[in-house]
Amino acid sequence: MAAKKLRAVRWDKGVVYLLEQRVLPFQEKWVKCDTVERVAKAIEEMTVRGAPAIGITAAYGVAVGAMRSKAKTATAFEKEVEKAIARLRRTRPTAVNLFWALDRMAECLKAISVLSVAEQKRALVKEALLIHAEDEALCDRLGKHGSKLLAKAKNVLTHCNTGALATGGDGTALAAITHAARKNKKLHVWVDETRPYLQGARLTAYEVAHAGIDFHLITDNMAASLMKKKMVDAIIVGADRIVANGDTANKIGTYALAVMAKAHGIPFYVSAPTTTLDLTKKNGDSIEIEQRNPKEVTHPQGVPIAKESYPVYNPAFDVTPGSLITAIVLETGICRAPYQKSLRSALTAAQKESK
Amino acid sequence: MAAKKLRAVRWDKGVVYLLEQRVLPFQEKWVKCDTVERVAKAIEEMTVRGAPAIGITAAYGVAVGAMRSKAKTATAFEKEVEKAIARLRRTRPTAVNLFWALDRMAECLKAISVLSVAEQKRALVKEALLIHAEDEALCDRLGKHGSKLLAKAKNVLTHCNTGALATGGDGTALAAITHAARKNKKLHVWVDETRPYLQGARLTAYEVAHAGIDFHLITDNMAASLMKKKMVDAIIVGADRIVANGDTANKIGTYALAVMAKAHGIPFYVSAPTTTLDLTKKNGDSIEIEQRNPKEVTHPQGVPIAKESYPVYNPAFDVTPGSLITAIVLETGICRAPYQKSLRSALTAAQKESK
Repeated sequence: MAAKKLRAVRWDKGVVYLLEQRVLPFQEKWVKCDTVERVAKAIEEMTVRGAPAIGITAAYGVAVGAMRSKAKTATAFEKEVEKAIARLRRTRPTAVNLFWALDRMAECLKAISVLSVAEQKRALVKEALLIHAEDEALCDRLGKHGSKLLAKAKNVLTHCNTGALATGGDGTALAAITHAARKNKKLHVWVDETRPYLQGARLTAYEVAHAGIDFHLITDNMAASLMKKKMVDAIIVGADRIVANGDTANKIGTYALAVMAKAHGIPFYVSAPTTTLDLTKKNGDSIEIEQRNPKEVTHPQGVPIAKESYPVYNPAFDVTPGSLITAIVLETGICRAPYQKSLRSALTAAQKESK
Repeated sequence: MAAKKLRAVRWDKGVVYLLEQRVLPFQEKWVKCDTVERVAKAIEEMTVRGAPAIGITAAYGVAVGAMRSKAKTATAFEKEVEKAIARLRRTRPTAVNLFWALDRMAECLKAISVLSVAEQKRALVKEALLIHAEDEALCDRLGKHGSKLLAKAKNVLTHCNTGALATGGDGTALAAITHAARKNKKLHVWVDETRPYLQGARLTAYEVAHAGIDFHLITDNMAASLMKKKMVDAIIVGADRIVANGDTANKIGTYALAVMAKAHGIPFYVSAPTTTLDLTKKNGDSIEIEQRNPKEVTHPQGVPIAKESYPVYNPAFDVTPGSLITAIVLETGICRAPYQKSLRSALTAAQKESK
C-alpha cells in the first residue's frame, strides 16, 4: 500500500514520458516523446490509451511543440502550434477527450496572442499541466465518493480498465477501490479479464498489484459462481456514456454483471465523470453499439484461437439499464434512482462549478 | 448440411486413427496409433479429449494390443492384454469413462478365456467396436430428444464442447443442435468461446462449421446482451454431473448463462447421458469443484496475457441449480421438474434397458 502512485503520463522539462501500455504488465518501459510527431505516433499506436489519458497526452503534445519552437515572431509561433494541434487531431478520429483537450489548447493559444513567444510557451505548458491536474483532482473526487460505497466490502469485483493507466489520476471506478483500500486493509478485488481485448488481465491487474491491493484474476464467466458463493460484496465499473434514466453504455460484459448482481442481491455501482452524462437521451435504446474487429475475438494478443474465416459478433459495448444500477458515482457526489432527477441535479452542480 | 458426419475416433484394420484436437481448427491431422503405447500417449497428450471419446479410444487401444500380439498361448495373450489395459489406465487418472471402458474390456477378456487366441482377438475388437457403436447410438437418442426442444428456435446458444470431438457420435447438447438443424434450416448458433480453455472457439465452432450450420463465435460475456436484444431463443449445454434435484455441474460459465436465461425468460436445457446422473447426492452443494492450472487463465494457448505471478482463481466447473433448468435431456427422454421424480424414473428406465 506504500507503493508510489501509478501515473501513465508524465511531463518533465518540455518532454512527455508515456508508460508503454502495449508491453504491460511484462515490461515497465517509458517512452520519451520530445517531438509533436513522437507524441502523435504514441497516441496512434496506442502506447497510451483510455480517453482522459489520451486527452492529457495530446495537450502535452501541443506543449512539446510550443517548447521546441524556434519561431522568433508570435505569428510564426502560432502557426507552428496550430500545425501541431492539427497533427494531433489526426491521431484517433473517435476520441472525444482528444478533441476536447486540443480545443482547449487552441482556445488558450487564441487568448494569449498578445503575449511574447516566451510567455506564450509558458502559458501553453501551464494549460496542459492544468488539464492534467484537473483530471487528477476529478479522479480524487470520484475515488473519495466511490470509496464510501465500498467502506464495508471485503470482496469487490471490477470489469475492464478504469484506473491510472486510463486517466490522469487514480481513475474512475478503480479510484473508488484504491481509495477504499487505504482505509480498508482487508479489501480484496476480483479482476475480470475483460474479453475480448483483455484490459482487465493486462492493465487492471497491473494497477491493483501496483497499489498493493490483494486480488485475483478471473475470466469473465466466473463472476456468477463467485456471487452464488457470496464471495462478492459489491461490483463497481466505469461508463462510456450515461443517459437521463441512468442507462449506461460500458464495455461489453457489464450488463451481464448487473443482471447477476441483481439476481444475487449484490450492489452494482457505476463511476464516471459528469462529462460522461448525455441527458439529451431519455434512455439507452438509441445508443448505437459499435462492432469491433473480429480478430479481437479470434486472435487475442494476435494469437489465433479460431479460424479467421469464422463469423464473429463483437460489440464493443452493452447497455445496462439504470434500474439495475444501485448508485452512480460522479465527481459531484453519489446519485441514486430516480436518475432522471439526480443526474440532472448533478450536471447542474458540475456546470455551476466550472463557471 | 450435406457434409460427412464428423468423427474424431476411427478404427480401421487393427489401427486407431485420432483427429489431432490440439491443432484444430487450423489443421485436420489424423494421428495413426498402431501400438498400445501410441494410443496411451495420444490420450495423455490430449490428442483426443472429451470423456466418451477417451473411453472409446482406450477400448480401441486394448484392441490394438490384442491384434498386435504374437502370443501363441491363451495365457501369454491374456497377460499381454492385461498389460495393455494397465498401461492405458495410467493415462488420465480422473477420467471416469476411461476406467469404465477399460473395466468392460477386462471383463470381456475374462469372459472369453476359453476361446482360442484368434477368437479372443476378434472378440476384443468386437467389444471395442460395440462400445463405440453404443455411444454413437446414445448420441443419436440425445440428439433426437433434444432436437424437439429446439424445433422452433431460430437462435440457439451453447457453451463449451459437447459434439463429435468429445464423443463417439454427434455429441450430447450439440447433437440436439445438429439434429434440429437437419429439419430447421434457419437455425443459427451462438458459440461461446468458453474461457479459459477455449473449447468453444477451438472445437465447437469447428464442429458447427463442419455440419454446415450458420453460427457466430462470441466471447462468454456477450451472451447477456444478446438475450436482452431477443437474439437468443434457447440455450443448451452438456453436464459433467447431475444430482437428484437437477443441480448440474458443468463447465465454468454455465451457471451465469442459466441466471441470465431466467432473467430474460429464455429456456435453459441440459443434455447428458444417464451415466452422468449421481442420484446419491440430494443437491449440488457437496459437489467438489476442482481448481485448475492458473496458466489456463494467464496464458491462453500458451501466450501470456498477465504476469504468471498474479494470483488466479480458476474453478473448472460451476453448479447450476435444477430450479434454473427448464428441462434435462437424457437418452431415455426429456425430464422436467420435479427432478427428484423424473430423474429417478429415467435412471430406472435406463437400467432396465441395459439388462
